[in-house]
Amino acid sequence: MNKPEVPDFLKNIRIVLARPSHPGNIGSAARAMKTMGLSRLYLVAPKEFPSEHADTLASGAVDVLRTAVVVDELALALADVTIAVALTSRRRELSTPLELPRQLAPEMVARARAGEQVALVFGNETFGLSIEEVEQCNRLVTIPGNPEYFSLNLAMAVQVMSYELFSHVGVGVDYLRSESEPATRDQVEGLCGHLDRAMESIGYYRQRNGERLIRRMRTLFSRAGMLREEVDILRGFCKQVERTAEDRHGGSTSD
Amino acid sequence: MNKPEVPDFLKNIRIVLARPSHPGNIGSAARAMKTMGLSRLYLVAPKEFPSEHADTLASGAVDVLRTAVVVDELALALADVTIAVALTSRRRELSTPLELPRQLAPEMVARARAGEQVALVFGNETFGLSIEEVEQCNRLVTIPGNPEYFSLNLAMAVQVMSYELFSHVGVGVDYLRSESEPATRDQVEGLCGHLDRAMESIGYYRQRNGERLIRRMRTLFSRAGMLREEVDILRGFCKQVERTAEDRHGGSTSD
Repeated sequence: MNKPEVPDFLKNIRIVLARPSHPGNIGSAARAMKTMGLSRLYLVAPKEFPSEHADTLASGAVDVLRTAVVVDELALALADVTIAVALTSRRRELSTPLELPRQLAPEMVARARAGEQVALVFGNETFGLSIEEVEQCNRLVTIPGNPEYFSLNLAMAVQVMSYELFSHVGVGVDYLRSESEPATRDQVEGLCGHLDRAMESIGYYRQRNGERLIRRMRTLFSRAGMLREEVDILRGFCKQVERTAEDRHGGSTSD
Repeated sequence: MNKPEVPDFLKNIRIVLARPSHPGNIGSAARAMKTMGLSRLYLVAPKEFPSEHADTLASGAVDVLRTAVVVDELALALADVTIAVALTSRRRELSTPLELPRQLAPEMVARARAGEQVALVFGNETFGLSIEEVEQCNRLVTIPGNPEYFSLNLAMAVQVMSYELFSHVGVGVDYLRSESEPATRDQVEGLCGHLDRAMESIGYYRQRNGERLIRRMRTLFSRAGMLREEVDILRGFCKQVERTAEDRHGGSTSD
């Protein structure tokens, strides 16, 4: 299976970093975005940018930094946006309800798919978003976490949100799956029959309830989700067991 | 609302880092864990540990490093574990099906809640997990991401997986929500009636279909999910509009 492509509409989702202090975080955020197929980075009054340190931490995502849009004010990063989502982990005296990433992400992805521009807005590393910045957004989201230690750094927050968005895009991981062929019901039944004969052939059932044993084995195979290859290996083994039993029998009659 | 507590059973979930090369990644991973309520870290043959650099990057999560268990071999970190989940983003010639974090996390959380020990196993930064290491795990998971650039670093991967687990634990963010009182249907209807009278009072309807305008306003209020306070603000405004209209009327009669 070929690698799927990152859908083009992800360019309608932008990550906005408001007043980031550390260029390293900008670089790590760019890398986090790119791992999840995002490419549009907006920087509002960054303390230091461009920066060599940012480039280093961006690793293979320097292209995201090169095409980043730098503006002086948050409003300029949001002008053409329909929903701007503010990230916050503080309790706010705001009437906008606080949403969870998993509730919000499908809507953001759907809007981006429909051609709308949507934004995720992250505040300064130390101070977060100011009230004025939050008021320029029309949605509030918070990443759920340890109430006693909520110390997600900026790039980690970008990573979590980008992951959450990407998980609703529908680009699967099937291309990573090995192309094993699952066994059919008939093949598994064939194996059960063969195992039954093999167990019988070596006198394994003597003191035991053979039917019950095979039933347990059938349950095991069904739970495991057998592959064709595994059925073949086990049938080969059963065949060899039967042969061995025959030989022994042959041997014992020649005694 | 008080802060909820991190449930005790999260101690049954361990993060295992196999042969980590960079102490900084160990520190960042500890911090990522703690933000999501996880505390049990196992290190298999770390290149450098303990380490000052790890402590620095762990920030407030140094306690996770202090209680970390260091072992020589992966098997020792998994001895008492029922499910060991290997993180991989490579295509493997293995018959274990590749799962997604969102499919797997609820089961891991349920098992931990039931008292089983479960593990997430992360490989070396450069080489990932070896075949031998993967074979000691009984589940395979991959974080979905950009097929053309899957360069999630170790701590980022720990963050995403920890977030995914935590999101199934059921510790909400309600304690962060502001306690605004939503408006009742009657309050919203009262506002619509008042707005109707205010618009009428200043002759706004002259060329317009008043009923239709109010219907549109009602739809808007309903979609927005009005709060009590917002209804009060708008009714205050309507009242003032009516007063102004009366005054003007009074003024015009005195002409």
